[in-house]
Amino acid sequence: MQNKYRLMSPGPTPIPPEVSAAGALPIIHHRTPEFGEVFTRVNENLKRVFMTENDVFIYAASGTGAFEGVVQNLFSPGDKVLIVNNGNFGNRWVKMGRAFGLEVVELEYGWGQKADNDEVAEALANDPEITAAVCVSSETSTGTVNDIQGFAKATESVVTVVDAISGLGACELRTDEWGVDVVVAGSQKALMTPPGLGFVSVSERAWRAHEESRMPRYYFDWTAAKKAAAKTPPQTPWTPAVSVIMQLDLALRQLLDEGLENVFERHVLLGRAARAGIKGMGLRLFGPDEDMNSAVTAAWVPEGIDGKQLVRAIFREHGIQVAGGQGPMEGRIFRIGHCGYFDAYDIIATIAATELALEAQGYPVELGKGVGAAQRVFSKSGAKV
Amino acid sequence: MQNKYRLMSPGPTPIPPEVSAAGALPIIHHRTPEFGEVFTRVNENLKRVFMTENDVFIYAASGTGAFEGVVQNLFSPGDKVLIVNNGNFGNRWVKMGRAFGLEVVELEYGWGQKADNDEVAEALANDPEITAAVCVSSETSTGTVNDIQGFAKATESVVTVVDAISGLGACELRTDEWGVDVVVAGSQKALMTPPGLGFVSVSERAWRAHEESRMPRYYFDWTAAKKAAAKTPPQTPWTPAVSVIMQLDLALRQLLDEGLENVFERHVLLGRAARAGIKGMGLRLFGPDEDMNSAVTAAWVPEGIDGKQLVRAIFREHGIQVAGGQGPMEGRIFRIGHCGYFDAYDIIATIAATELALEAQGYPVELGKGVGAAQRVFSKSGAKV
Repeated sequence: MQNKYRLMSPGPTPIPPEVSAAGALPIIHHRTPEFGEVFTRVNENLKRVFMTENDVFIYAASGTGAFEGVVQNLFSPGDKVLIVNNGNFGNRWVKMGRAFGLEVVELEYGWGQKADNDEVAEALANDPEITAAVCVSSETSTGTVNDIQGFAKATESVVTVVDAISGLGACELRTDEWGVDVVVAGSQKALMTPPGLGFVSVSERAWRAHEESRMPRYYFDWTAAKKAAAKTPPQTPWTPAVSVIMQLDLALRQLLDEGLENVFERHVLLGRAARAGIKGMGLRLFGPDEDMNSAVTAAWVPEGIDGKQLVRAIFREHGIQVAGGQGPMEGRIFRIGHCGYFDAYDIIATIAATELALEAQGYPVELGKGVGAAQRVFSKSGAKV
Repeated sequence: MQNKYRLMSPGPTPIPPEVSAAGALPIIHHRTPEFGEVFTRVNENLKRVFMTENDVFIYAASGTGAFEGVVQNLFSPGDKVLIVNNGNFGNRWVKMGRAFGLEVVELEYGWGQKADNDEVAEALANDPEITAAVCVSSETSTGTVNDIQGFAKATESVVTVVDAISGLGACELRTDEWGVDVVVAGSQKALMTPPGLGFVSVSERAWRAHEESRMPRYYFDWTAAKKAAAKTPPQTPWTPAVSVIMQLDLALRQLLDEGLENVFERHVLLGRAARAGIKGMGLRLFGPDEDMNSAVTAAWVPEGIDGKQLVRAIFREHGIQVAGGQGPMEGRIFRIGHCGYFDAYDIIATIAATELALEAQGYPVELGKGVGAAQRVFSKSGAKV
């Protein structure tokens, strides 16, 4: 029997049909009033999603590129920076920081564990040479979401940098209210847009650090981005990814029409249902069973089952693309993404397909048990699904 | 009367309907055999378009980003590099090289002038510390195309780097035959794809230079790109711009179906017709009147006419988006792009609209004179238009 294609990975994520359709619009020139109108609206709406009055810049790059921009724009070689590492992406920023000659103070936690913000505060108190602190919001590799409000409080004395690449729009992140100086995000997660755009928001304090920074930079230079954005019509310094920005324009309007607080609540509910489904079918969650883990749900592959084969079977036999584990968790966990354009029935379908795939591989599951548990979450919530 | 929208800028450029439509396809995950199949084909076809057996890497970035990757991957701070500067983009690479601490030996020519390869050879002979030489193929800001075959010959003793961002696919560039070590390109010019992808090809000699290079890098790291490309399925190290790569796949197949030599010939003819049209209506060309200037045609704005207003009028009144001048040429020249998905009637429409716009602004033109001159080029060529 044919199956529809369902992308349930934590990035890239599926995009709404209107956003898809916008991908087929004619390409327009990027230094015209016509593009300037779109670009202005996108920038204003991005600020609303970032919950900030700070500058927000858009790059033709993935989130990793936008993050490299942070390293180049905030620091000078030899600067001391604290980086929380509790997964693949925390680990990436440690490696990137070192590649650029930063002295990285690494605060390591196990994959699936959360950062301890008391330890963060202590590390900063013990070392006044540290000028900035980095933490991942939603660690895509594990599903674990760090307490960014607490992190911002613990790092008040330095420049606070948050990787919200898979978090922004899926997990509450009140940039200005919480005092986060720099937030990095990408188009292909909760912002419901194809991959290809990276974003960064820059606070007053971050601008002051930027002025002192002597790291070589050009493509990701914040000053160049600010200068181009101040032109009439507003622009990017280099050719932007016009078609993806046109798509982002529609996606942001959909998000804001739904209402940010509703978007956060929807993600909390999707995560809760995914975890209930996993537990309901008798599997073990990877990482804490917390409402704040609203972007990605990770589960242990049960004993006796080949994790890579399970992920492939869920796709090949059922059309649903979940993600396997990364790095040390390869083959040991699988991940269901729900940051972005997802609803209750995406979760229900994924739990149902996982049950069927496990049954086919000889693992004892009672069909419908996980699904029922997910359904009960939606039913109890009173939300209209 | 309504006008259709016609993008005649030298980047971004219009894209074929099939490539547009592919922009609305569902997003697929980038670490799957399904994407691997597309990615493998795209890489093979890119090599054919680059006319090289060298590695070619794809970035989520504009051409400027891919060029920053060259600076980061080839050099160490303090390295001496010769850069030809005969326009906005040559100028950009000089500034970028200096931003990264390179000692740039700048060989400057006026805007619209071509590089003198004898002087290039002489500069290298006079300074054996220079390890690499950079030249722009098609200088998008002026329409002038440098003699890259001659440049590669003159720079045989060092690593030869060519910016073919607007040139690749529009101007003959035989990477391996001519011995060009590094070629940079972008998706949004002759490759008939939306902006958002940058490319680089890397020769054996460039790899050896890379091994010595101590410039900090991460996002654009060639070694990381090579490692990811060698995986099964082949990948990029960071999330690629999936939808634009799917579009590139179709665009490259169209280019190769047309046949590279035919593509070059078509561009030569388009350029010849555009220049004939400009001269036919009594305007002066900016830059040499040469067949090799096959990507962009630049013309002086005639005296008494406001250049910015002319470009806006051609768009507002006629729906045709040509480009104004950049930097010192702002308001003084205008540019017609024909690198990419263009045919005879695009040139004819643009020449016709320019005549009408000039007439409306009180400039003495005989309607149809430029158009007739362009038509005669096509007619004489014997090409089926």
